Amino acid sequence: MQIVTFASDYGSVDGYAAAVKGVIKSIAPAVEIIDVTHELTAISKAAFVLNRYWKDFPKGTIHLVVVDPTVGTSRKALAGYAAGHFFVGPDNGLFSYIILNANKSVWRRIEPANIFTRRLSTTFHGRDIFAPAAAMLANNALIGKFGPLVKNPVCLPLSGPVIMGSKIQGEIIDIDSFGNLIINIPGGKIRHDSTVMMKRKTIPFARTFADLPVGTPMAYIGSMGYLEIAVNSGRADRYFKVSVGARVTVIS
Amino acid sequence: MQIVTFASDYGSVDGYAAAVKGVIKSIAPAVEIIDVTHELTAISKAAFVLNRYWKDFPKGTIHLVVVDPTVGTSRKALAGYAAGHFFVGPDNGLFSYIILNANKSVWRRIEPANIFTRRLSTTFHGRDIFAPAAAMLANNALIGKFGPLVKNPVCLPLSGPVIMGSKIQGEIIDIDSFGNLIINIPGGKIRHDSTVMMKRKTIPFARTFADLPVGTPMAYIGSMGYLEIAVNSGRADRYFKVSVGARVTVIS
Amino acid sequence: MQIVTFASDYGSVDGYAAAVKGVIKSIAPAVEIIDVTHELTAISKAAFVLNRYWKDFPKGTIHLVVVDPTVGTSRKALAGYAAGHFFVGPDNGLFSYIILNANKSVWRRIEPANIFTRRLSTTFHGRDIFAPAAAMLANNALIGKFGPLVKNPVCLPLSGPVIMGSKIQGEIIDIDSFGNLIINIPGGKIRHDSTVMMKRKTIPFARTFADLPVGTPMAYIGSMGYLEIAVNSGRADRYFKVSVGARVTVIS
Repeated sequence: MQIVTFASDYGSVDGYAAAVKGVIKSIAPAVEIIDVTHELTAISKAAFVLNRYWKDFPKGTIHLVVVDPTVGTSRKALAGYAAGHFFVGPDNGLFSYIILNANKSVWRRIEPANIFTRRLSTTFHGRDIFAPAAAMLANNALIGKFGPLVKNPVCLPLSGPVIMGSKIQGEIIDIDSFGNLIINIPGGKIRHDSTVMMKRKTIPFARTFADLPVGTPMAYIGSMGYLEIAVNSGRADRYFKVSVGARVTVIS
Repeated sequence: MQIVTFASDYGSVDGYAAAVKGVIKSIAPAVEIIDVTHELTAISKAAFVLNRYWKDFPKGTIHLVVVDPTVGTSRKALAGYAAGHFFVGPDNGLFSYIILNANKSVWRRIEPANIFTRRLSTTFHGRDIFAPAAAMLANNALIGKFGPLVKNPVCLPLSGPVIMGSKIQGEIIDIDSFGNLIINIPGGKIRHDSTVMMKRKTIPFARTFADLPVGTPMAYIGSMGYLEIAVNSGRADRYFKVSVGARVTVIS
Repeated sequence: MQIVTFASDYGSVDGYAAAVKGVIKSIAPAVEIIDVTHELTAISKAAFVLNRYWKDFPKGTIHLVVVDPTVGTSRKALAGYAAGHFFVGPDNGLFSYIILNANKSVWRRIEPANIFTRRLSTTFHGRDIFAPAAAMLANNALIGKFGPLVKNPVCLPLSGPVIMGSKIQGEIIDIDSFGNLIINIPGGKIRHDSTVMMKRKTIPFARTFADLPVGTPMAYIGSMGYLEIAVNSGRADRYFKVSVGARVTVIS
């Protein structure tokens, strides 16, 4: 049985996400749709979040991501393939991490003429283009049938850490709903006697949240393999008054 | 495999919606439950939202909708059939669009004595009446077995547009979570040189959201086929300070 | 087909819950995952909510509950069996109602060495320990293979009502998202001529919400079999300005 994961900015309450699911099930009755979230708002956050879950699904999974503020304009509709997984959504940076990190990824433009769709609105391509494309992939359609190759899909400017001798300069790339800070410094670059600094404060290392007293900030290697900063039973974003882009320094 | 779509006002956090799903899966193990939303609050909104998604599902789908402020009173429990789809929920107006728009729809009262239920509470008919009824339909029970015909199920007073010569007077019938305004004027009644007015402002036509500059309001034919008004990257409801029921005029 | 129900505090927007689902589907492709909620915050609420839905699922269902503020510390990872259902989650009180109310329940420590996991982070055991364990149970793994018996899993101090002659002293144990108050007094202990009192006010009995005028408080036997207090079309928690733990007295 094939899986379509579905993440969007539709919310759930208006029934837009449900309409997308209905179209998928109408074209590919055997497919299983797994909700990720329909509460995304920003493309950059959606790109990061996709990167958190896609690899955990079985190969062959189709990842449908629709955060689409320029729906109906000349922005392309994309279908992609990387590392055994499929990706469907608008060409606006949502797939940046896959494009930049996968050994090889192939992207095709989805031409509306090449997909089965009952309607073609200008404002709801989730239902009218992306859902049919995802369902056709679930039915083993060849991605090459959707349209021409897209050689340079849109990529967000993802910043990596800057290494200067014994000092690594990074930045917050995500703040999760717990208020934990994810920093673009891979754990492999950090030693346990390294010093982590943010806003002129030194942040002690810990293995996990409850290793230090309640209310205490700590640095640790998070579940994605990046350096993270949290506060036990608190919110690190509020504790440090920081947002995405804030600088973090590691000194070894 | 049969599908039950499930929309309600239960929220997710209390486990009420989960209990409903458990009852459905206990009676009809092979059915697939597709969540729509559990964040509905008003019957009128729920009726409109159901109308947005039901037709996109395969024929044979059972649409369970539970927004039920008068649960346990003498309000009827309904099961209906229209255009190849089944509907289950309280008789309080939730199915107004199906009743008014379908060529033919048949509605039956669900008598608790005719369904398999383990319990019969006075306050949780989602679990005790509607879930078993939906599951029995998924098991191919005949709707006629549930109880007597309901000839006049409750219908909300859905207002249509008023046409006066070259002028069409309509009103906002839904505001979605993006703040887009959906107006009860079908796109087919509008010409591209028509003028759309709301609160004494003329609103230019566009094909899609990003066709006009950020912050600019626009009128367009939306994904449901109705006239809609949006603001590029903004919220039209706040821009115009309007709510459902506000008047919109189209002059051709 | 086996079912895994999934409740957590992960929220949906970060993709943590999706990663858990991906791991489950990778190990047990045929399992069906049913979302309960990912908006839990407190262990006590999660324990109560689990108790609202688990019994409604078919026997053999695996209930995965992850509200885990002490992830990565020495708190145990648990897999349990009671009344034909399986339970997986941290040993922090989440399973209190099952432990205290089931005729017999068996609990085992999940040793990471005994489960199939690709990674072992210190902060995301939902993905790295609980998801694999739930998936292995779905694949008919024996619970005894996970690790040693846990004879005294953590139980929250669940308070029962105190009976003093014709007077029963209870307390609010849950407030649902409608603002309804659930009280730890079983309906079987209440007579219809009993008097229900809270904050020195006598609350009349009703069968269901809409039996008394809008805005009126009422007492009734709720869908879980407990005494409840609600306000027709209102919120009893705000009406009475009460929270969990507030006293309710029944006099027969």
